[in-house]
Amino acid sequence: MQTDEFHVFDTTLRDGAQREGITYSVADKLAVARLLDQIGVGFVEGGWPGALPKDTEFFARAAAGELSLRHGVLVAFGATRKAGVRVEDDPQVRALLDSQATVVTLVAKSDVRHVERALRTTLEENLAMVRDTVAFLRAEGRRVFVDCEHFFDGYHHDPEYGVRVLDVAASAGADVGVLCDTNGGMLPMGVHDIVSDVRRRAGIRLGIHTQDDTGCAVANTLAAVDAGATHVQGTANGYGERAGNANIFSVIGGLVTKMGHDVLPDGCLTELQRVSHAIAEIANLAPDTHAPYVGAAAFAHKAGLHASAIKVDPELYNHLDPSRVGNDQRILVTEMAGRASVELKSAELGVDVTGRPDVVGTVVERVKEREAAGWSYEAADASFELLLRDELDGASEPFTVESYRVIIDRREDGRLVSEATVKLHAAGSRVISTEEGNGPVNALDRALRKALERAYPQLAKMELTDYKVRIMPGRHGTDAVTRVLIETSDHEREWTTVGVHGNVIEASWLALHDAVRFGLLRSAGSV
Amino acid sequence: MQTDEFHVFDTTLRDGAQREGITYSVADKLAVARLLDQIGVGFVEGGWPGALPKDTEFFARAAAGELSLRHGVLVAFGATRKAGVRVEDDPQVRALLDSQATVVTLVAKSDVRHVERALRTTLEENLAMVRDTVAFLRAEGRRVFVDCEHFFDGYHHDPEYGVRVLDVAASAGADVGVLCDTNGGMLPMGVHDIVSDVRRRAGIRLGIHTQDDTGCAVANTLAAVDAGATHVQGTANGYGERAGNANIFSVIGGLVTKMGHDVLPDGCLTELQRVSHAIAEIANLAPDTHAPYVGAAAFAHKAGLHASAIKVDPELYNHLDPSRVGNDQRILVTEMAGRASVELKSAELGVDVTGRPDVVGTVVERVKEREAAGWSYEAADASFELLLRDELDGASEPFTVESYRVIIDRREDGRLVSEATVKLHAAGSRVISTEEGNGPVNALDRALRKALERAYPQLAKMELTDYKVRIMPGRHGTDAVTRVLIETSDHEREWTTVGVHGNVIEASWLALHDAVRFGLLRSAGSV
Repeated sequence: MQTDEFHVFDTTLRDGAQREGITYSVADKLAVARLLDQIGVGFVEGGWPGALPKDTEFFARAAAGELSLRHGVLVAFGATRKAGVRVEDDPQVRALLDSQATVVTLVAKSDVRHVERALRTTLEENLAMVRDTVAFLRAEGRRVFVDCEHFFDGYHHDPEYGVRVLDVAASAGADVGVLCDTNGGMLPMGVHDIVSDVRRRAGIRLGIHTQDDTGCAVANTLAAVDAGATHVQGTANGYGERAGNANIFSVIGGLVTKMGHDVLPDGCLTELQRVSHAIAEIANLAPDTHAPYVGAAAFAHKAGLHASAIKVDPELYNHLDPSRVGNDQRILVTEMAGRASVELKSAELGVDVTGRPDVVGTVVERVKEREAAGWSYEAADASFELLLRDELDGASEPFTVESYRVIIDRREDGRLVSEATVKLHAAGSRVISTEEGNGPVNALDRALRKALERAYPQLAKMELTDYKVRIMPGRHGTDAVTRVLIETSDHEREWTTVGVHGNVIEASWLALHDAVRFGLLRSAGSV
Repeated sequence: MQTDEFHVFDTTLRDGAQREGITYSVADKLAVARLLDQIGVGFVEGGWPGALPKDTEFFARAAAGELSLRHGVLVAFGATRKAGVRVEDDPQVRALLDSQATVVTLVAKSDVRHVERALRTTLEENLAMVRDTVAFLRAEGRRVFVDCEHFFDGYHHDPEYGVRVLDVAASAGADVGVLCDTNGGMLPMGVHDIVSDVRRRAGIRLGIHTQDDTGCAVANTLAAVDAGATHVQGTANGYGERAGNANIFSVIGGLVTKMGHDVLPDGCLTELQRVSHAIAEIANLAPDTHAPYVGAAAFAHKAGLHASAIKVDPELYNHLDPSRVGNDQRILVTEMAGRASVELKSAELGVDVTGRPDVVGTVVERVKEREAAGWSYEAADASFELLLRDELDGASEPFTVESYRVIIDRREDGRLVSEATVKLHAAGSRVISTEEGNGPVNALDRALRKALERAYPQLAKMELTDYKVRIMPGRHGTDAVTRVLIETSDHEREWTTVGVHGNVIEASWLALHDAVRFGLLRSAGSV
């Protein structure tokens, strides 16, 4: 259940985006926000409008209707007004209003050393900056949370000043004072002591924001809750600067399954694993196999000592029933490895496999085999459906390819030409077509469509709308392979196909081939 | 300083080897043991002689002189005698003696449910098994530690029985009773409470062994020490079954730098990062860039907000001086950064930009411009250094490319051929070379090297060691671009370069070109 009593606050898109190697596009950010909403976090911090152009655009597109959250509220992040400037004249504060976010998180200095050495202003001016900015945003109808940067380090140097910041924020109308371990040097015992002390002294609801520099971010967050914090901040998969932030999936797992805090809407806990993996995909990072709760190996058992006993009594060897967090006890070679998942997936695609246990068995085997070689059907429903229908009743082949050739030529004058030739048989004729494109895959796509356009004029409606590439490291001494995902649209529906090969062009071709084949079968009513 | 007062006990080679995907050879195990000795752990648990043939061989070779530890002692792991068997007749106990290890860790059941349901014996017989085995090994001159499996889960069901096991072990002569959170479901508050309670009630020195299923293994270990445990078990990089074990590097980091326990011999702490990476190398796993203390990004700063302040006062933004654990502060050059980051990064690369504010300004502009177009320099130090040096003093061009051409041909017989031709000028000659490869990038790489090999024979040493591709969705109505990162090694050092273009082949070419150019300038001493 989800109420305002306890805040699960996600900052994947703001603080988490500081992780080395992550660069989200605006479309990526929208997709991540939608996924976070599926696990029912209460607050999705979207970025820093006014400071980063991409974040400004993200809030504009969200406000224009591209993002509608079912469970959570979108939050804008910003700083208190600049020293010596009137709050209404600070363009950065103005940008927070323009973002149209109903909740704003303000970062405030709460460590005297940072006020004096980094901000280079007085302790009183810093308090005024907090007071003015909170009051201004409150007067404009915004709900305000205050992130107290370097709170714990500050407490060690001066245990009074941070509490003054909290009190000023509270009296100006802020709802939550978030104690941030910005440098990440804390251990849970210290967090527990300080949060307990501050809770006795400050008149505001307390939140906790931790970084993983001691490997204790999750524990520090849970220790703060044990000491009375009722607002936790974290990021998907613990992404964040340096060693990262508190992993929100582990924090949720601990709160719900270990501490009895029922912090998610009903039915959301089982989405943890799926959402964790999908966000990794968007961040273009391999999901951490060994992540608590959500990792593919989180409930996998290797020890011979254990394996036999597990068969007798799984409860003895798992700290949790894996299905509660959407995970599985088996070693997951693949999401699709079991008969049950193939049956469920088929039903979802509208393909009837009841009474065909042989087909289900063959499909399970083929999927296992292909996933071991780097394929993934998780995101490629259309390729999976083709595989399934080929086994079930032999989906017809609308065309047969004889050969293709791609030439990429960078000429002396610097001009780059990509050209593809496709030779195929369709509707009883042999066709040869050559096209240029802005790259080899585009050239291949155009040559393939041109070769088929006479036999299948409906191809004119379809277009390639997304193309993703991922290098899959070789396993067990094999070479790395390239996985290509292609999304195609006919302006009514989108479908995704996959191709895997050591050669990026062939991988792309396999995905293109499936994409066009699926589109043609679909337009013919065969799928 | 290292004494028997506090035990740092490593189980990388025993419990850590249960991690999915790890298979050590005996030579690997010897190498890992030597590395662990370099950080001065007190105990290196080598495996389970008698149960696993590879471990039997490991102990035999260690005893035969292949392993001599400077700081630590080699430990053999085994189980208490079987139920209903005399200890002197149990071949598995005998194998522990044969291993010649002077210290033995015995695993014992301490959860009544496991005794009854998994071991299927009586609670009294289990106690006798502990008593007999400890006494037998003590009589043979061995030092004995007892790992109490499932201690915490057992405590929840029956808080008495585990303490009885500890008391029996102590009275039979065991030195340490290790409380194991075998299923990994604990949080630090609970660990602290239980260790405190057991410490009051049991007459034996306590150790702690945790698993990371809640993401709290390190915190749980440190909480146990706070509650009085003086023996900690962990594994290199947290390797272990499911979510892994307590990461011994993070445990050591916390003990030494946060809790003031001086648990390592002098001079060993600075070896943490090197040893962490070397063990990852042997385990054939990529080092975790974001690992606390030892990760390459553990002290990396990306936010422009921070970078300017770091220049003023690094202490304000690091929880620890990175050099204490053998790590470095790194500055990531990214769109979030400004002049300060470029200055810091230049200093880190050993490029002097003092007195050249014009160059810094131009580089900031070029980086911003290029990052807006999809480039990213944060992982591509070599490309950044080339950009910087080109602005600073015009790095020389070791070769000039005239044109290239790549052909990918899938023939009628299904055979796939990738061929590249490169035309360039180097050392006064025009060279044309054509090569095949297992894909277009490999073919280009080979053709480029072949064209240069006569002018630059040192190229033979360099090889492309990693290749990453990412499609960056178009922004503001532009087409998507492809970003390629290439890692190159000359077996002494690695460097990473980046290329971005709408065409995947051209993006790869740009990264390849930078990679070879950087390598050649470096071998000439120009960078």
